[in-house]
Amino acid sequence: VIVGEAKKKTKAEIGPEGVVARIVTAANEAVSAAGLRLKNVTAVGIGAPSPASPETGIVFNAPNMAGWIDVPLGEMLGQKLALPVVVDNDVNLGTLGEFVLGAGKGCSNMVGVFVGTGVGGGLILDGQLVRGARYAAGEVGHTVIVPDGPLCGCGKRGCVEAFASRTAIEREVRAALAEGRPSVLADLMRDDNDRLTSGTIKQALDQNDALMTEVMAQVQYYLGLLAGNLVNIIDPEMIVFGGGVIEALGDGFLEPIRAIARPCFLSQRDVDRIRIVPATLGDHAVVLGAAVLARTQG
Amino acid sequence: VIVGEAKKKTKAEIGPEGVVARIVTAANEAVSAAGLRLKNVTAVGIGAPSPASPETGIVFNAPNMAGWIDVPLGEMLGQKLALPVVVDNDVNLGTLGEFVLGAGKGCSNMVGVFVGTGVGGGLILDGQLVRGARYAAGEVGHTVIVPDGPLCGCGKRGCVEAFASRTAIEREVRAALAEGRPSVLADLMRDDNDRLTSGTIKQALDQNDALMTEVMAQVQYYLGLLAGNLVNIIDPEMIVFGGGVIEALGDGFLEPIRAIARPCFLSQRDVDRIRIVPATLGDHAVVLGAAVLARTQG
Repeated sequence: VIVGEAKKKTKAEIGPEGVVARIVTAANEAVSAAGLRLKNVTAVGIGAPSPASPETGIVFNAPNMAGWIDVPLGEMLGQKLALPVVVDNDVNLGTLGEFVLGAGKGCSNMVGVFVGTGVGGGLILDGQLVRGARYAAGEVGHTVIVPDGPLCGCGKRGCVEAFASRTAIEREVRAALAEGRPSVLADLMRDDNDRLTSGTIKQALDQNDALMTEVMAQVQYYLGLLAGNLVNIIDPEMIVFGGGVIEALGDGFLEPIRAIARPCFLSQRDVDRIRIVPATLGDHAVVLGAAVLARTQG
Repeated sequence: VIVGEAKKKTKAEIGPEGVVARIVTAANEAVSAAGLRLKNVTAVGIGAPSPASPETGIVFNAPNMAGWIDVPLGEMLGQKLALPVVVDNDVNLGTLGEFVLGAGKGCSNMVGVFVGTGVGGGLILDGQLVRGARYAAGEVGHTVIVPDGPLCGCGKRGCVEAFASRTAIEREVRAALAEGRPSVLADLMRDDNDRLTSGTIKQALDQNDALMTEVMAQVQYYLGLLAGNLVNIIDPEMIVFGGGVIEALGDGFLEPIRAIARPCFLSQRDVDRIRIVPATLGDHAVVLGAAVLARTQG
């Protein structure tokens, strides 16, 4: 259970020392909100937007945080808090959270796919997070699905993320609007300083906007192919779809994904054993996963 | 070590009872060749071209063996031989063989990719074969890489197998020859009753045949993308490429695959830790994997 919460912007530009100070402030606020003190805390878990080692607490290279290379986040934070700290990749922790406390409860093999600004993922096999030889496993969004497809943030072409992330959705919508395609999105995005949020996507779909429906059908198509590919490689019991976009659109959005994925399964035996379901922990998946990790390893 | 060998055609069309009788004959011949008798044997391992359960010995559905659905191969063979028999998918066993006794010796996470008539695969994580919720894991050849690509034997379009298998290579070569493209393959394939064997592929490449070189560069491209995708999902220590095509062409054939795969890795940290290597056991990978399984579980 979550007994207290606090939230702060990362402000990566102030550098690791400054960010750690902000994390310490947030930790103190969260503990206060729970009516506790830091000395009541047994261990701390933290997720980083980067490959990271739970063994050493080092954050390797956060692509969206300039200058964050080989930062010993676990050690820095552990000294300030005088508590054991375990560090992991944030999406791994989201996957672990959903596995232990959310949609994946009770299964032992699952893949988490998180659709937001990017498309991240995590793997659980035999009840354990698969971190990989370089702590880089689970990046299912960066599998190429169309070799000559649109440019991805990672520099490759045609990754799943280049089709299915909120960033990709916004790119498609902007291109269509620029071509003069009529859509409620022209107005809805203006209200939002021109950003296409997950909420706006939902609003446009609810109004049966033709452009939004078409763009999201393409997203479902590529996520369905991804799910099919993951089943043929891993054959998990469950694929859990989470992240802002999925959260906003709900289980109904997954039905076409299931319909596209299922015929892709090479083995058509026991197809119903593979469940494709929405995440249930929302924004809390990562912190709950961090708590699970801290409890077991901290 | 292999102390005795015997080989027989499967003759799937005679049905499970008949095939089991042929396996028993082959087993007796192999034991004789080793100067032993069946009572000297401790356990038997067998690979099936189908998803199969090592727990129950049931072979679920062999796509290339009509009528082989839910065949209790382990039980049938165990009764005839009066020995413990363990059954698994043949490519899983090939992967296990390479892992324990071949190219993967000493690592703990690897993916096997076998390029022959089709493109099969197997996964080892944390030293264990990953079989999947339905014994269907490791089918890396049936991941879609070009959604509108050529038809695959599995019914989908644009699977890796539809680009990189010997069957796909032969399709491309035939199409080019039919269009009147000049190539030494026109003659070489005639010598072989029009079949394009792995040996013929090598011969044509050795003669710097432009058509063969072009077709194989495409194979390398798609296998490179597959390797990149597998690294981003699994982050294994090693990808072992085996099967008839790779065996015929050797390590030189893998260099372009490595060159295509590496820039695809999302994490560019410790890129050299991911080794992409040829299998070393050749035809013996599956039987050696079967022996390993029989020793540990039989």
